Amino acid sequence: MEKKISSAVINRLPRYYRYLGDLLADGVTKISSQELSQRMNLTASQIRQDLNCFGGFGQQGYGYRVQSLLDEIAAILGLDRLHSAVLIGCGKMGAALVNRITFEKRGFKLIGIFDNSPDVIGTTVGDFVVKDIAEIDEFCAKENPVAAFLALPREVAPDVARKLEKLGVKGFWNFSAGYINLEDKNIPVENVHLGDSLMSLSCRMNTAK
Amino acid sequence: MEKKISSAVINRLPRYYRYLGDLLADGVTKISSQELSQRMNLTASQIRQDLNCFGGFGQQGYGYRVQSLLDEIAAILGLDRLHSAVLIGCGKMGAALVNRITFEKRGFKLIGIFDNSPDVIGTTVGDFVVKDIAEIDEFCAKENPVAAFLALPREVAPDVARKLEKLGVKGFWNFSAGYINLEDKNIPVENVHLGDSLMSLSCRMNTAK
Repeated sequence: MEKKISSAVINRLPRYYRYLGDLLADGVTKISSQELSQRMNLTASQIRQDLNCFGGFGQQGYGYRVQSLLDEIAAILGLDRLHSAVLIGCGKMGAALVNRITFEKRGFKLIGIFDNSPDVIGTTVGDFVVKDIAEIDEFCAKENPVAAFLALPREVAPDVARKLEKLGVKGFWNFSAGYINLEDKNIPVENVHLGDSLMSLSCRMNTAK
Repeated sequence: MEKKISSAVINRLPRYYRYLGDLLADGVTKISSQELSQRMNLTASQIRQDLNCFGGFGQQGYGYRVQSLLDEIAAILGLDRLHSAVLIGCGKMGAALVNRITFEKRGFKLIGIFDNSPDVIGTTVGDFVVKDIAEIDEFCAKENPVAAFLALPREVAPDVARKLEKLGVKGFWNFSAGYINLEDKNIPVENVHLGDSLMSLSCRMNTAK
């Protein structure tokens, strides 16, 4: 477990987690790397290599126990302990995220929502009343959120991120197009570029025929 | 241009496109694969290999002309001709996508929005009045959209996708968690799993310290 896991494997783990969860929901309790590879569109050797990174539960001629593998991946993903998080920016995208994503199943617990617009402050989104961003210092001092979800305009995101870093935030999920450049380069930032998959789709549609 | 481009390269192209666009905005007109590799966190040889896939504009000792490379990538991504698209499902996520993404810059032109909820049908979202999904057959027969963006509940997405396939849709951008299983396996489907990047963030936060 203390072994260093490569960034590429970390990016693939959520996919394994989803597929294995679906298998379990379908009543499948064991699976070979061959079967998993067909479903996931990866090579069997890639899968064995990935799963070996963290111990691996495969047995020759038997395959992987789906539940054990799922539990192990959940632990590596950190889904068994929740990171407290604040959402900064509650426009349409911020509200859609709160509405759509079950953060507790993804390793996070949302503990507050902040915005700077008088139209939004005080409104209820999910289980929260949106707070004024002016209260963020006080809130962080008291509640110590470790993660921040940024659904902000591009122009303000970098400054807000720097501020949150100073307030003790240790991880960022960034929906704004702005490039987040933190003091501490070891703090993980996951940038979500929705337009990228759209451009890939455009490319695939052009080359499909 | 007719050369087959691998799926992995197609997935990286939007990132090149974004970085090169930022460089140009910063007034950078040429760049070496070394500089590009530092900025993009890829190896220089990976970059040369990727860009060679489609001709490549690098010159020994000079580097790449940013504008030429950008234009070439835009053409491969198909950003120079717009695919007409419908958005199906205009709840919070659908509305957020319309609000946030400039489809014309990503290779698509939105031509209609559909929903089945009486609360949403007839409301204005972006430049569109949301239509009743019951009108989709007629709309497709007349307007021939080639792409569909699905922001639907998991349960209904697969059936809606199959229906749209019959109506001539040739590409899907799928925001619903449902697995889209089309008749024609060559039709590209880009699934957006927002929770995946959140789980990767959780994992990185656990391993960072």
